Parts: sequence; C-alpha cells; structure tokens
Amino acid sequence: MVPAVLGASVLWSWNIPRAVKYREINKITGLKGTAVNVQTMVYGNMGETSGTGVCFTRNPANGTAELFGEFLINAQGEDVVAGIRTPMPIKLMADVMPPIYAELVANTTMLEKHMKDMQDVEFTVQEGRLFMLQCRNGKRTGTAALRIALELEAEGLITKDEAVLMVEPRHLDQLLHPQFQDEKKYAKDVITRGLAASPGAAVGRLVFSADEAEEWKARGERVILCRHETSPEDVGGMHVAEGILTCRGGMTSHAAVVARGWGKPCVCGCEQLHIDLKSKTLTFELHGKEVQLHEGDWVSLNGTTGEVINGAQPLKKPEVTGGDLGKFMAWVDKARRLRVLTNVDTPEDAAIARTNGAQGIGLCRTEHMFFSTHERIAAMRRMIAEEELESSHKMEALETLKAFQRDDFEGIFKAMDGLPVTIRLLDPPLHEFLPQEGPAMEALCKQLAAELNASVERVEARLNGLREVNPMMGLRGCRLGIVHPEITDMQAVAIFEAATKVMAAGGKVHPHIMVPLVATIDEMDHQLNVIHAAAKRVADASGKKVPYKVGTMIEVPRAALQAGHLAERAEFFSFGTNDLTQMTFGISRDDAQAKFLTTYTRNGILQTDPFDTLDIVGVGEMVKIAVERGRATKPNLELGICGEHGGDPTSIAFFNKVGLDYVSCSPLRVPIARLAAAQAAIKAGKAK
Amino acid sequence: MVPAVLGASVLWSWNIPRAVKYREINKITGLKGTAVNVQTMVYGNMGETSGTGVCFTRNPANGTAELFGEFLINAQGEDVVAGIRTPMPIKLMADVMPPIYAELVANTTMLEKHMKDMQDVEFTVQEGRLFMLQCRNGKRTGTAALRIALELEAEGLITKDEAVLMVEPRHLDQLLHPQFQDEKKYAKDVITRGLAASPGAAVGRLVFSADEAEEWKARGERVILCRHETSPEDVGGMHVAEGILTCRGGMTSHAAVVARGWGKPCVCGCEQLHIDLKSKTLTFELHGKEVQLHEGDWVSLNGTTGEVINGAQPLKKPEVTGGDLGKFMAWVDKARRLRVLTNVDTPEDAAIARTNGAQGIGLCRTEHMFFSTHERIAAMRRMIAEEELESSHKMEALETLKAFQRDDFEGIFKAMDGLPVTIRLLDPPLHEFLPQEGPAMEALCKQLAAELNASVERVEARLNGLREVNPMMGLRGCRLGIVHPEITDMQAVAIFEAATKVMAAGGKVHPHIMVPLVATIDEMDHQLNVIHAAAKRVADASGKKVPYKVGTMIEVPRAALQAGHLAERAEFFSFGTNDLTQMTFGISRDDAQAKFLTTYTRNGILQTDPFDTLDIVGVGEMVKIAVERGRATKPNLELGICGEHGGDPTSIAFFNKVGLDYVSCSPLRVPIARLAAAQAAIKAGKAK
Repeated sequence: MVPAVLGASVLWSWNIPRAVKYREINKITGLKGTAVNVQTMVYGNMGETSGTGVCFTRNPANGTAELFGEFLINAQGEDVVAGIRTPMPIKLMADVMPPIYAELVANTTMLEKHMKDMQDVEFTVQEGRLFMLQCRNGKRTGTAALRIALELEAEGLITKDEAVLMVEPRHLDQLLHPQFQDEKKYAKDVITRGLAASPGAAVGRLVFSADEAEEWKARGERVILCRHETSPEDVGGMHVAEGILTCRGGMTSHAAVVARGWGKPCVCGCEQLHIDLKSKTLTFELHGKEVQLHEGDWVSLNGTTGEVINGAQPLKKPEVTGGDLGKFMAWVDKARRLRVLTNVDTPEDAAIARTNGAQGIGLCRTEHMFFSTHERIAAMRRMIAEEELESSHKMEALETLKAFQRDDFEGIFKAMDGLPVTIRLLDPPLHEFLPQEGPAMEALCKQLAAELNASVERVEARLNGLREVNPMMGLRGCRLGIVHPEITDMQAVAIFEAATKVMAAGGKVHPHIMVPLVATIDEMDHQLNVIHAAAKRVADASGKKVPYKVGTMIEVPRAALQAGHLAERAEFFSFGTNDLTQMTFGISRDDAQAKFLTTYTRNGILQTDPFDTLDIVGVGEMVKIAVERGRATKPNLELGICGEHGGDPTSIAFFNKVGLDYVSCSPLRVPIARLAAAQAAIKAGKAK
Repeated sequence: MVPAVLGASVLWSWNIPRAVKYREINKITGLKGTAVNVQTMVYGNMGETSGTGVCFTRNPANGTAELFGEFLINAQGEDVVAGIRTPMPIKLMADVMPPIYAELVANTTMLEKHMKDMQDVEFTVQEGRLFMLQCRNGKRTGTAALRIALELEAEGLITKDEAVLMVEPRHLDQLLHPQFQDEKKYAKDVITRGLAASPGAAVGRLVFSADEAEEWKARGERVILCRHETSPEDVGGMHVAEGILTCRGGMTSHAAVVARGWGKPCVCGCEQLHIDLKSKTLTFELHGKEVQLHEGDWVSLNGTTGEVINGAQPLKKPEVTGGDLGKFMAWVDKARRLRVLTNVDTPEDAAIARTNGAQGIGLCRTEHMFFSTHERIAAMRRMIAEEELESSHKMEALETLKAFQRDDFEGIFKAMDGLPVTIRLLDPPLHEFLPQEGPAMEALCKQLAAELNASVERVEARLNGLREVNPMMGLRGCRLGIVHPEITDMQAVAIFEAATKVMAAGGKVHPHIMVPLVATIDEMDHQLNVIHAAAKRVADASGKKVPYKVGTMIEVPRAALQAGHLAERAEFFSFGTNDLTQMTFGISRDDAQAKFLTTYTRNGILQTDPFDTLDIVGVGEMVKIAVERGRATKPNLELGICGEHGGDPTSIAFFNKVGLDYVSCSPLRVPIARLAAAQAAIKAGKAK
C-alpha cells in the first residue's frame, strides 16, 4: 500500500543510483518508469473499534493449517512492526471483534484458494470495517514448506508439479542438516565469522590435534577439531569430530573439501583466531577484550553462516518424518529428466548417498582413499619416492596401494550394485601427499632414504623438486598418468580386479573410468592404451570380461573446444566445472576468495561467486560448446557434471537446459539436486 | 637415387611404426603406399676415369656465386660421406677431367636456372661419363641466404617476393646475434646444457653476484653473471653482463624474461651446476671428474643451444653490411600486411627497436620499470606496504613512483615520436616485488615498519599474506587495479602528464592504455572509469587534451568468449598468448617445462611446445573466436598480439591469416617478425 503523499517519491525513486544499477544488472531496459497506485488511506488508530494486523493463512514455522498472526487494537501498521506495543495473537480477535474475525477468515481463505499458496496478509480495521491491505505468498521454514505443499495438493488446490515448485532447495537443505534451535539467541556469544565451508550446526569440546580428537571421542566426548589448517594426517581426527574449525584455508582447502564430502559442518579461514599448540589455547578478541579458550571448552559452529560460537548452543534435529519427505521426493523424481549421481570415495558414503536417492557415482576421487589411514598414506609416499627415484623397489608400493584400492572399489561396487560407478584416475599433484616443509618432511625423507637405499639428500632433492609455482596448472591429472603410466595401470588393474570379484559373487558392476585434465586427443589415447591393456591382462587372468567405459573430464578450456575430437575416443564427458571455472576465468579459487572475489561481489563486478553458481555466460558457453561438438560426433555421448555446481539449483537449471544427462554432487546434496532438477524440468516444460 | 635392390625395402618402409606415426601426426591419409623409382646404378669406383662428388651451385657459407664442393676419384658416394679418404676441392676437377668439369658446370648452371635457387648436387663419373644423381635446394648460412637471394633477384632469376621467401627467419636470426666462430670446435669444453633461454653467444669472466658484476664491469672486464636464480635486485648486474647463467628457473623465469627483452644471451635452469657463494666457486662433473671454476674464470654461453662452455670461445660479429640487409628488408616491408610493433620497457630499448624497424610499442610492461634501480624497487615496496596497511602515508610512495613512471614514459614517447605506444597497467602479483622469505624479507619488514609506524609483526603478516598458492591465477592484472584503484590512477596520471609534456615540446604522442587479465565487462568498465577520470584531471590542470585509446588484453579464455561485449568498450584488443596458452591448456609454463612438457614432446603427445609456437587448433581457436566476435561488434577494432608468439614465424603466419593488424615482439625479433609477416602475406597471396 502506498499512501498518496508518497506517490511522488515512489516515482522519483526510479532514478536513484541503486535502482539504476539494479536495472542494469538485471538487464531491465526500455521502461519509462515505475507504476504507482494512488488510493485512499485507512486508519487503524481511530479508537477501540479500529486496529491493524498481520497474519499467515498457515503456520509459517511448521505448516499447520491455521490462521497465524498478530493483531493490535487502535494502532497503525508501524506500531506492530516497531514492537513498541505487544500485539495479541490473531485468534483472540474472534473474542474481541467476532464478525470482523469471521470476515477476515473468509477473506484469507478465499485469498489462499485464489493464489494457491499460503498467504502473508496485512489488514486494517477502521471503525468496525475490515480493509484488506496487501497479500503475498508467505515466507516459511523448510518444515512448513514441505507440509504446506503436501496439504495444498491433498486439498486439490495445486498439482503435484506445483507442489514440487513450492518447496525451495534451501528449504530441503534446512530439513537435511541439524540446526541451532534459535540463531538469534546466541548472537552475543559469536566469537568470529569465517568461511561457511560446510553447512550445518555442530557442538563439541575444543581439541587441537587429530590424535586428541580421537582420544576424546574414544572417551565418549563430542569434539570440535580446531587446526591452523588440516592435512591428510588429520583425517582420522576430522572423521570423529562433530565439526571442523580452521584458521587458514579457503573453500577448497583440505578441511573444507573433506568436510563437505562427509556433510560435516566446517568453518574455515578464521584468521582472527590464534592457536597456541603448546598451551592448547585459542586466543581472540571479543568485545575489545582478549579471551582465551582451552582444550575441552565447549564451542559451537554454524557451518551455514560461518559463525564460531562460544559455549554449547542447543541444537534441534530435522523434524521431517520419512513418510512426508518420501512422498514428496517421489513426485520430485517423477518430474525430473536429469539423473542425480553422487561424489563419494568410500563404501560407507556410497551407502548414504544411495539412501538419499543417488543413481550412481559420478565422481569417485581415488586420491582421497590414500589419505584415510596411516598405512595408506605411507604407501603412497613410498610410491612417490620410488617413482621419482626410479627405484628398483618400485613395484612394492604400487602393489600395496593396488590392494587397498581393490578393497575400496569392491566395497563401492557392492554398495552401488547395478548402478554406474565413475572413478577418476589420480588427479592432484603428488606433493599434496607430502607433509609441509619442516620436521615432518625431514623425518619422512630420512625414512624413505633408509627404505629405498638412497641418500637423504637425493630423496629430499627429488621430493622437494615436486613442489610447483602454480600447482593447479602443474603436473597433475592425466599428465601424472602419462609421466608415470605405472600409476594409471595400477589403478586400472585395481578397478578391474575388484569388478571381477564382485561380478563373480553375482553383483552387477558398471565401472566408468574417467581421465582427468585432458586437453588433447593424444593424452586421451595414451591413457586409453594403458587402461585397455590393463583390462585385457585382468580378463586374460580371470577368464571374465568386465564391461567398462572410459571417458574424460572436460575441465580445461581446450578440452571444451576439442570436444568434437575427444568424443571420437571418450564414451562419456564429465564436466569438472570447478577447474573449468578456474581456467576460463584465470582465477585460482583459494587465492581469489581471500584476495579479490569479495571486493568483486561487493562492487558488483561479479554478481555471484562463480564457484558457487556457474558463470553461465562464460563457463556456461564452454559447457555448451563442448556439448554441441561432443554430440555432433557421438549423438548418444553420455554427459554429466561433477563439479560442486552439480549441487547448486541455479546451475542445475542450466545443466538441464543445455542437455546434460546427469549431475553429480555430494551425498547430502543429492535430495536438493533431485529437487532442483525437477523444478528445472517443470519450468522448462511450462516455458514451452 | 635408390638402387633397384633396395626397392622392396623402400616399399616395405611405408609400414614401419615411425612412418605410420609420421603420417598420423601430419594427417596424411588416403594414400596406398610410397612411390619407388627403379633405375640403373652407375659406379664411380671403376678406376681413374671414374669418381663421385657433391657440390653447391653457390658457396653455402657466404653465398659467393661459385661452384663449391668436393670430388673423389675412383670412389662411391659413401666414401665421400664416410670421411675415410680426403676428397679434393671441386675446382681441381677442371685440371683432372676438364671436359667433364665443363659439362658439370653447364649442368649445374642449367639446374640452378631451372630450379631458381642454389642447388645441392650429387654426381658420379663412370668411365669418363658424367651422371647427375640428385639435386635439391641447398642448405645455407644466414649470410649466404641473404646474398644468394639478392643476387638471384639481380640476375633476374627470381622476383623480389621470391627473394623474400628464400631467406628463412632463422637465417635472419643468425645474422642478428653474435655467433661463435665454430660451434664444433668447443664440443670437448661443454660443461653442461641448460635451457636456451635467450639466443646468442656470450663470453666473459665468471661472477656470482650482481654487485660484483657491476664492479668487474667498471674495471673494464666482460662478465658472465651466474646465479641460482635472479631477482629484481640483480637487474643492475644483469644489465652489465655479457650473458646470464642460472641454475634454477625456466623459460619464463626472471632471468629469461629480462634477458630476452634485452636480447642478451641467457642459459637457465642448469641444475647440474652447484654454486657456492661463500667460496665463489662453481662445481660440476665433467667427463666423470669433479671440476671447479672460480670467480674470474672465463666461460662462454651459447644461448641458442643452451650450452655452457669452459673458456673464452672465439666469437664472430654479424657479417652483414647494412646495405644488403637494408635493401632486402625494404622488399620485406613492401610485401607484408601485418604491422610489427615491439615489446620494450625503456627509452633505450625503444630506440633500438625503432632502428630495427618497429612501428610502435605493442607492449610496455610498466612493472619492469620498478625493478631498474634501488630507489624504484624501494618505493614500490613502500607502496605495497602502504596499500596493504591502508597507511596514512599512503600517497608518498605513489607520488614517488608516479614521478619515475612519468620520466620513463616521457623518454619512451620521445623515442617513439609519432608512433603508438601501448602501455600495460601493472600486471604481476605484488609479492613478485618482495624478496624471498629469509633475512632480506625480515630486514625489509623491519624497515617498512619503522617508516610506516606499524609493528613489524603486522607488516610481516600483511606482506606474507600476499603470497599465493597459484600466483598465475591470483591477485594480478586488472584485479590489482580494481582492489587498489590508486595504482591504476597513479599510472594513468603518469602517462597523461608525460604525454602532455612531450606534446608541449612539439612531439606527437599516441598512448594506448592496455588493461590486463580482463575477464568481464564490469572489470573493463571499472578501469575505464579510473583512467578517464585521470585523463580529465590532467587535461583540466594542463588545459590540453591528450589523444588516447584504452583497450584490453585477451588472455583469459572468458575474455575471448566475451569479445563481442568487450569490444563495446575496448578500442583495441591485444592477445596475450602466453597467458592465453596457460589458461586454455591449464598449464603453468614454468612448472610444465621441467615436469612434463619434455615427456610430452618426446612421446609425440604434443608436436611442439605450445609456448614456442601457438597451438593453432586450441589456443588459435580462442583467438579466432575473439577476432570474429570483436569485429562483429566493432568492424574497425584494432587487433594485435604481444605474447612471445609475436616473434615466432609459424605463429605469425596464423596471425596474418586470422586478420590481426599487428604483432609485437622483443626489439631483436622485430626484423624476423617483419620477414615472417612478409612471407605469410606472400604465401597467402599465392594460395588464393
């Protein structure tokens, strides 16, 4: 409602800088100005027969079908909003002014029926006469959104597709992660705010090392693991922690990636916190005073907002019963065209993802398997040293790793029985498997020198030589497998042997082997040769052929341009949109977030962080080019995406439009991706 | 000549793996096999009236028009090649078998006239009868190539365009750099082979620090500066050295880039050499023995081959007289369509480039100006600390730097009077201006803390915070100018003030301001605003308007895709093909060369290093897309290229074809680029 006196200033507001910028950003052009309704004002402050109120046609907190809101006698709208007087629950109107309440109920019922959604209504009563001022679809919690959608459908007001559109992905996200009971209540206890690296609420006692985390957990304690940054050695402690807190590192730091993969809350890069490992204390400034927390003190993390909170803040469990969600998700699945796969690295996570509705694995990062135990990372480091030193012991570490990988793949194939399992060959630069420079690295070099019968200096020189100026663009991906074909061979054999074993036990296995960071067809050919040879060796030994596919990731711009040629060889493409975004923009994600992306989004140079929501104009065109060229060569080429954009609703809408076959995301994002895919399909159908 | 008995094995050779791969690489398809000529064998070993020889129709070393070659009585071809017997100079044939010599002269003269080029001829005399076995265009030195081309044109055998095609770019390269008198003679003295980072021959006495280089030079000594790697502090010493030798670093290391810019020989990344700075010695293994060189010992560098040679090897000066080369280059310039600009950073280099025929500056890297003296790098570091600490002293360092830049630009504008000068705004990450971690960095932080009245810890924290995981994709290029608009403003004001001053003195100034690493139109708009505001301030103060253009580099893939939009704002595009290659492939040049590019080129996964010759299929398509989209928006958009490919003949042919307006390269490559541009234009004309 716009009072008449404000009409002129509303017209004027069309040209304020913020409005001009808004139209520019949203490409709203060719309009002459804003429209203004000029109407008679009504007054709720004309005595005891007047009043004003706000109400929802259903409870916005839990979705119950009841009129829900507040009412104030002898007052204007501002009085309700300003909180000067305490309003009364709307239902008391039935006692105070029964006929008007009856009219209000009739009106709101009619409005909801007409608008086909829960309404947020403002009204004024002037001297005994009810005026409806405004209505709009009401904001609601995830719990309420689900219940309202289901009940409106049951009442025949909306179709199942409309119900699917009514629950927003963030509603589902809320429903799936533990939450704090009340985020407003802990405001005074907020210590600092870091990067919201992995959503959800976590409460536990502070520990400063992975070993301590495991010890405390073994004693039955809940812990929050707090580290400068995490490394592969910390994985055990990270796994037992309720949440992870780091002082350094960005949204793709080790802590963030691992935590998101597990759906574990994580707050990263809290540079204001100072850890002293010796005294086991965490020091920070709070309200101008220096505060210290000690090992064992209670803290809470809000991974959705990045807040670190003093004390144990009360949590609430997801309130959704399986039945309602299950019913709703069945409608979702019926509506969508895109398949939803998942990014997981262990049999346990594969099982969780399947429960969440994953239709296979779109990305199994084999390197994560090497971090999970001391034996594995030790064997990995031995292999690296052997490769670098071209040691005569070379085969030992490869054989050890192969055994580990074979067991993992066997578990994963079983968990995903009958569904495709896409396994990416080793991707990160080898130095990521080594400790930071310092005592740990020195000790490792000494140990490896003894094991490999080489001088410590030589081991140090070779291993330090692995460090790179720009590791993101260095010796990684298929380049590793080309320089060290033994590694590709080891991984391929592990895959085929595991598949053979599961098949022998009656399982149905569909390994899709994915070659990372391909830029040229000759790289693809090289790796194809190694993989096919491994397949043949395993088949010859077992007498059984494993059905498998080999595809490539499209994650460097050249691969997108060369997609027509790559499709001659690749049986599928998987878009690695994290790297593709990095290369297309020339932006290192970790460096960018701290150094300039914040300035960029604040100044409107970028509307959104391109690592959260796909940059459709730039990176999206790369995807489009690759889809068109790939399908021109091979019309039935299978196309998917396994970057983090695979769990982002806006990006999923684009992937639906551009014609991908599937998206792949972390296990806990699977339901959200299913919903986003369904909404994209429904909207695309409507747009036709 | 193929003896009949070999016919079968020639046919057979069609299917050997090397031949199959060759056809695959060169995309030679649809052929049934090789052709074989079977012919009668003749014999030169049938007594004293027989013999065999090889000759050139002109001297291949210096181009003199004379029959040049060797002859052996009673011998077969293998005997000449094998070097068992010493052949006689061809002219002595006139004495031994006069009529046959006359016939040979007549034949070779006819062959040269027919083939219109100097011929390399094989012949046999069997019992007094001359048989011509084979002829082909002869290989020749740069000196010979130039002379032969000019004389064949003068003799009316070829046109000027054909003469231009006859001198290869590498011939010109030879003519322009000092050479060793005889590369074969020093073979036994070769110490090691590093990366051939900057071509040419250099001889001098070994020194191990920049200060020592300057001291020795001041005493009239020639020196070779040998460092682990060079840094901005070494620039003075590098400048006075004959050549530069480093143990670490690749083709884009500081040493390599600076040396190439100056046309100074440089060999990089000699990891086999061990420098001991304390004892001032260089230790290496030679023929299985450990050898030590000391400060002051003579060494030679071959920057064309990467060889490091013990002792002072004799040099020769370019033998070309200005007259011949001048005449030839006039033909070259008439034939070409592409303009040739140059990449220089100082007035001195600008003058050299202009002498070499540069038609303007295509890339002036302003950051290089900050390295040239102690005062400049000190002011730069002060500015960085001030920006980072948001110091109240902020303006002091900016003003100091502005004064330096204004002087430089003034000199450059004068040297390039009447020609365009393209100035790139600050591009590298700021931490490149800081010392390595260690004592130098600690001292700097202490000094800056005192100057800026801040705690040492705070200065250290902020400056160390500038280091990045992947600096190539970090806070650099226009991102710097957006996070710190004061830097862009300072540079723009320096440009406009310098231009105003030169104009006032009657000079003609055409500054083209180039915004680096642009990926979005909003980045371009941001920097355009800052630059236009600076122009207006300077014009308001001086009362004179400087004519200028603002353009962008196309060096990240997204910019190529967005070229249609960027052309709405940019008045020119300059392709930064070094970075565009890095981003399109996802390859960090420095890491790649040591870690996997060698494996790639050796295994045929890449045919050439994409940083030497443009990857036409991938990176070239990016360029093509940007050209098409940019010109679609703005048909008269000026298009150039300033990456190192601007000096590479094969790449230049592509740039000619794709329709660029100019290439820009280092001053000493300018003549080569002119030649390559002319050859590309002539060949393109012939192809029509």
